[in-house]
Amino acid sequence: MAPVKEELFSTVAEPVATGRNKITIVGVGQVGMACAVSILTSSISSDIVLIDTMEEKMKGEMMDLQHGSSFLKNARISASTDYGASANSSICVITAGVRQREGETRLDLVQRNTDVLKQIIPQLVMYSPNTILIIVSNPVDALTYVAWKISCLPKNRVIGSGTNLDSARFRFLLSQKLNIAPTSCHGWIIGEHGDTSVPVWSGVNVAGVRLRDINKDVGTEQDTEGWTELHKQVINSAYEIIKLKGYTSWAIGLSVSNLASSILRNSNQVHAVSTLVKGYHGINYEVFLSLPCTLGEDGIGFIVNQKLTDNELELLHRSANKIHCIQKDIKLN
Amino acid sequence: MAPVKEELFSTVAEPVATGRNKITIVGVGQVGMACAVSILTSSISSDIVLIDTMEEKMKGEMMDLQHGSSFLKNARISASTDYGASANSSICVITAGVRQREGETRLDLVQRNTDVLKQIIPQLVMYSPNTILIIVSNPVDALTYVAWKISCLPKNRVIGSGTNLDSARFRFLLSQKLNIAPTSCHGWIIGEHGDTSVPVWSGVNVAGVRLRDINKDVGTEQDTEGWTELHKQVINSAYEIIKLKGYTSWAIGLSVSNLASSILRNSNQVHAVSTLVKGYHGINYEVFLSLPCTLGEDGIGFIVNQKLTDNELELLHRSANKIHCIQKDIKLN
Amino acid sequence: MAPVKEELFSTVAEPVATGRNKITIVGVGQVGMACAVSILTSSISSDIVLIDTMEEKMKGEMMDLQHGSSFLKNARISASTDYGASANSSICVITAGVRQREGETRLDLVQRNTDVLKQIIPQLVMYSPNTILIIVSNPVDALTYVAWKISCLPKNRVIGSGTNLDSARFRFLLSQKLNIAPTSCHGWIIGEHGDTSVPVWSGVNVAGVRLRDINKDVGTEQDTEGWTELHKQVINSAYEIIKLKGYTSWAIGLSVSNLASSILRNSNQVHAVSTLVKGYHGINYEVFLSLPCTLGEDGIGFIVNQKLTDNELELLHRSANKIHCIQKDIKLN
Amino acid sequence: MAPVKEELFSTVAEPVATGRNKITIVGVGQVGMACAVSILTSSISSDIVLIDTMEEKMKGEMMDLQHGSSFLKNARISASTDYGASANSSICVITAGVRQREGETRLDLVQRNTDVLKQIIPQLVMYSPNTILIIVSNPVDALTYVAWKISCLPKNRVIGSGTNLDSARFRFLLSQKLNIAPTSCHGWIIGEHGDTSVPVWSGVNVAGVRLRDINKDVGTEQDTEGWTELHKQVINSAYEIIKLKGYTSWAIGLSVSNLASSILRNSNQVHAVSTLVKGYHGINYEVFLSLPCTLGEDGIGFIVNQKLTDNELELLHRSANKIHCIQKDIKLN
Repeated sequence: MAPVKEELFSTVAEPVATGRNKITIVGVGQVGMACAVSILTSSISSDIVLIDTMEEKMKGEMMDLQHGSSFLKNARISASTDYGASANSSICVITAGVRQREGETRLDLVQRNTDVLKQIIPQLVMYSPNTILIIVSNPVDALTYVAWKISCLPKNRVIGSGTNLDSARFRFLLSQKLNIAPTSCHGWIIGEHGDTSVPVWSGVNVAGVRLRDINKDVGTEQDTEGWTELHKQVINSAYEIIKLKGYTSWAIGLSVSNLASSILRNSNQVHAVSTLVKGYHGINYEVFLSLPCTLGEDGIGFIVNQKLTDNELELLHRSANKIHCIQKDIKLN
Repeated sequence: MAPVKEELFSTVAEPVATGRNKITIVGVGQVGMACAVSILTSSISSDIVLIDTMEEKMKGEMMDLQHGSSFLKNARISASTDYGASANSSICVITAGVRQREGETRLDLVQRNTDVLKQIIPQLVMYSPNTILIIVSNPVDALTYVAWKISCLPKNRVIGSGTNLDSARFRFLLSQKLNIAPTSCHGWIIGEHGDTSVPVWSGVNVAGVRLRDINKDVGTEQDTEGWTELHKQVINSAYEIIKLKGYTSWAIGLSVSNLASSILRNSNQVHAVSTLVKGYHGINYEVFLSLPCTLGEDGIGFIVNQKLTDNELELLHRSANKIHCIQKDIKLN
Repeated sequence: MAPVKEELFSTVAEPVATGRNKITIVGVGQVGMACAVSILTSSISSDIVLIDTMEEKMKGEMMDLQHGSSFLKNARISASTDYGASANSSICVITAGVRQREGETRLDLVQRNTDVLKQIIPQLVMYSPNTILIIVSNPVDALTYVAWKISCLPKNRVIGSGTNLDSARFRFLLSQKLNIAPTSCHGWIIGEHGDTSVPVWSGVNVAGVRLRDINKDVGTEQDTEGWTELHKQVINSAYEIIKLKGYTSWAIGLSVSNLASSILRNSNQVHAVSTLVKGYHGINYEVFLSLPCTLGEDGIGFIVNQKLTDNELELLHRSANKIHCIQKDIKLN
Repeated sequence: MAPVKEELFSTVAEPVATGRNKITIVGVGQVGMACAVSILTSSISSDIVLIDTMEEKMKGEMMDLQHGSSFLKNARISASTDYGASANSSICVITAGVRQREGETRLDLVQRNTDVLKQIIPQLVMYSPNTILIIVSNPVDALTYVAWKISCLPKNRVIGSGTNLDSARFRFLLSQKLNIAPTSCHGWIIGEHGDTSVPVWSGVNVAGVRLRDINKDVGTEQDTEGWTELHKQVINSAYEIIKLKGYTSWAIGLSVSNLASSILRNSNQVHAVSTLVKGYHGINYEVFLSLPCTLGEDGIGFIVNQKLTDNELELLHRSANKIHCIQKDIKLN
């Protein structure tokens, strides 16, 4: 008797294994899994590959997602320790690396994570030479630079998740203070994803009305209404959440899925992501920092030239200096 | 002074024009536009091209959709009378053709619409040699055959929208009678999209419970509960809606968008679509009829070999004969 | 023998007929149907009621939507000439009225459509006393005033679709000129939905960078880069599309569905909608015009006090005067 | 000088705090958070409240979700140790309880978790007397019975997440074996969520074709093709994933969000959920077990009376006996 499957089906053409929106996620820690779940539940990709060296944990996460595939519009989830499984990925998201500890600065992690990237990036690029890399591991700005160097990809295809998250946190905090929707609070955090991030208070607006046109002190030392405090909260967010729950995951996962959506939909939406900033705003170092960039099919398209105040410029240079300081000691080989 | 755009942006890489999920829709009549709107609002594609010879109407429809693009996750909509605009489409949906008039059978339209396809198909295939064709124009089964012949594409890449819609109508009517959700009413209409369509009553079930296991008369002449009536309503649906509003549009648009989603997401979901049925269920004619098929990245994968009753088989052969009758007189050259 | 349904199911509790997100749409013309389709495909409501006096057309549209319900997450669609069917609607969208003809101004339609509203509004409010009215019929600003007067609802619960659409058109045109996503082009059109609409050029920005800070002439008579032209295109859009395809539908449908989403999700997002503007920006007339407003569960929450330039203020007063001129002659009884 | 907010906004009506789709989730462990994330990313609710006694962890999770709200269509996330925050919830999801340990059966946990429910349920019902309870904590069947008893709610409003997940796992495994989409593999697991769950092999079908009509041995001891193995894998899934990653989370989160969607959309879709089965299939005990049920606005509507084989019936009774055995010793007071 023929097997059930043979009796049940006649084959017209063999099903194809790889989807056109394939995304590989390297690292199945809390951040990697939050990225995977956000991407799957938002139907941004129907083909997710997990890569990690922790085989058991990875297999467990894969199975757990697979069991939900009938609730995920039949998305395909696979996992492997072998980078061959990542072949022909449109996007590779890198979350691998040692996690930021309570009290640890993002920048202390850099060399340890550079060594991790050296294992990962060449393999990803070998199997997906036309991919776009989204670097999430911290310190993200330095590591995006490292990934760019190691990968030999054009700069538009190596993107750090950067301050897309910090900007989202900022907008949420603005929304709480104003009692309106976060998406109606327009504000940008640029520079380092971390302690020296720069809030561009000069442009913060609701429906085109700049808060500074109402009160010129908003976001300055003279501010008496607590606006300036919001940026401090943004900076402390990661530390506070790590203290409370041990790590951050959901918001960074949603942030990365938001970037992936703009790329795969070729939307040219503006996001604050980490990119090579040499030559912008008077920065002469070859460093990566977040600026507002359009994202599409080919990665970064345009960088928006924001009109920064002297103070904002100074803060941005401080970010650049800090990153440069760390970067110059990284051993790439 | 430099233009605003130059001052505002620095270019990292020129934005790419074509998305990876590009869908071309030929024909901007009510059906074509319902397809476009369903595909856009469901975020199945972010890159839609409209093609028609009616330049004014087409431009009006394009503008009307474009004005909604900020509500459509920034989808791109373009339109042209020139098939060059369709280049590199993943899917081409063909809705062009003379519309079914009140009282007219779908099959009367066939030669007129064959001549229309001769203008369209070669150009589509020239600009997108790896595309998948979804034929929607009526009589859809005969015209899918025609499209297959003209296109020289492999049979898995030429798909008629077929009885995916009839099955949806059937499930809706079952759901009304049972007062449960349509998606929980499992029933298939196969064969011709039209008057000789075949309801596979033998398999109709809710949670695996076949209605015929409760009452063997369901869907037969002996049925006293009105089940058999439901299929008559399915057949009359198009005629009745045309009588009431002049044409059908929404349900066929949603049906096509449902097929496109399975293809672009490479889901291998089973849909009743029109495919080459020679060799199946004892059919010897080279005709296209709807059978349950899996759809993925490469079009049709498997055909499900349903266990049909003698009566269902006889009805299916009637469908095949009817289509063959019409088809044999079509002039392809 | 018991009927199949009785054998198949045991009843635990009778299914409930009305969903919590019920939306009634009055008018099944092109605009009403585009609203219905946008709301259904975006899953904003799972319970839509169509109301119209054209019984045949209405029934045809209902059936056509119902046949797609298995593709619409099992949404429920009903229709009636009797307003009792609208009972307990969260939102009532009014699209009924005589359509704007080619070349006709929106304002010529006003008394004819006031008489239509007198038939509709009291019945809607009787059956859904806590509903929110979204007026779409043109001239929308005058008719929203009329609806407010007739309905006796608080002003926050009577909303005109207003310049939410004009703003979307403006953002699309900005996006074309800048080659970035429409949702990244922040610009507001306020005032009348129509010929005297006011582009708030002073606040137009990308990532917080005002175009006027790059070139102070943007949007003025002195502008040599064609920005000013964009607003003219916004005004001409409706006329041009009506000329090309006979009516506008998709963008207004998407715009209304965008408003409905903010209300039902209680999001407090800012939208330009028509509201009672007496007392704002020095307007003393009791007229409705669009200003940026937050929308939530209870309709309009806040109005954003934009900082308008003298020129913008003057244009807004021109809008107010024009609406007042027409309104004062409307016979409400 | 007036505060910025007062200058920026004029208040038309105070924003409303509670959305109409409010869902409270009790327990911020891995399962509770997976439920929250699935519900938020799928836009099933725009108003989520987290309740737990672990204040720090809970606050960390809340902040982490809130920071993503601009990526979640402005959903509102709050958290409290005080049940007052849950007032007027449409659905309360209970995930609190001691987690199943490696090797531990679901049933060992029961009294410990009953005591937990005694703290939770009365408070939830006091603040949301019309709510629907979805019990997720294990052993889910016994605890749903407990929740029903404690809550005094009608049986249709107390639902156990039950074998909706087991059925999803079963469909995924069928899909892997058949190489088609999970949603096209129709199979039901009923009975206990756990070791004595019952695969209804007699009804397993693809497009209405029962596998047993192809090969009568499918799912029996005689089966040589490995089908029977699939159910064993379903049973072992939880144990295996717990062994691999320490807990299960994603699939149960997606499963619960799937149930919540059917309820809030009033869809009457059929799901296998745990309900009071006394009187069905000859069961005389007052126990909760999963059967296919329709879910809508008022919770469970119909139970589908499946035609079970003698063997399936026997297995179902074994489930009932097992649950009864445990249940009879639970101390409710």
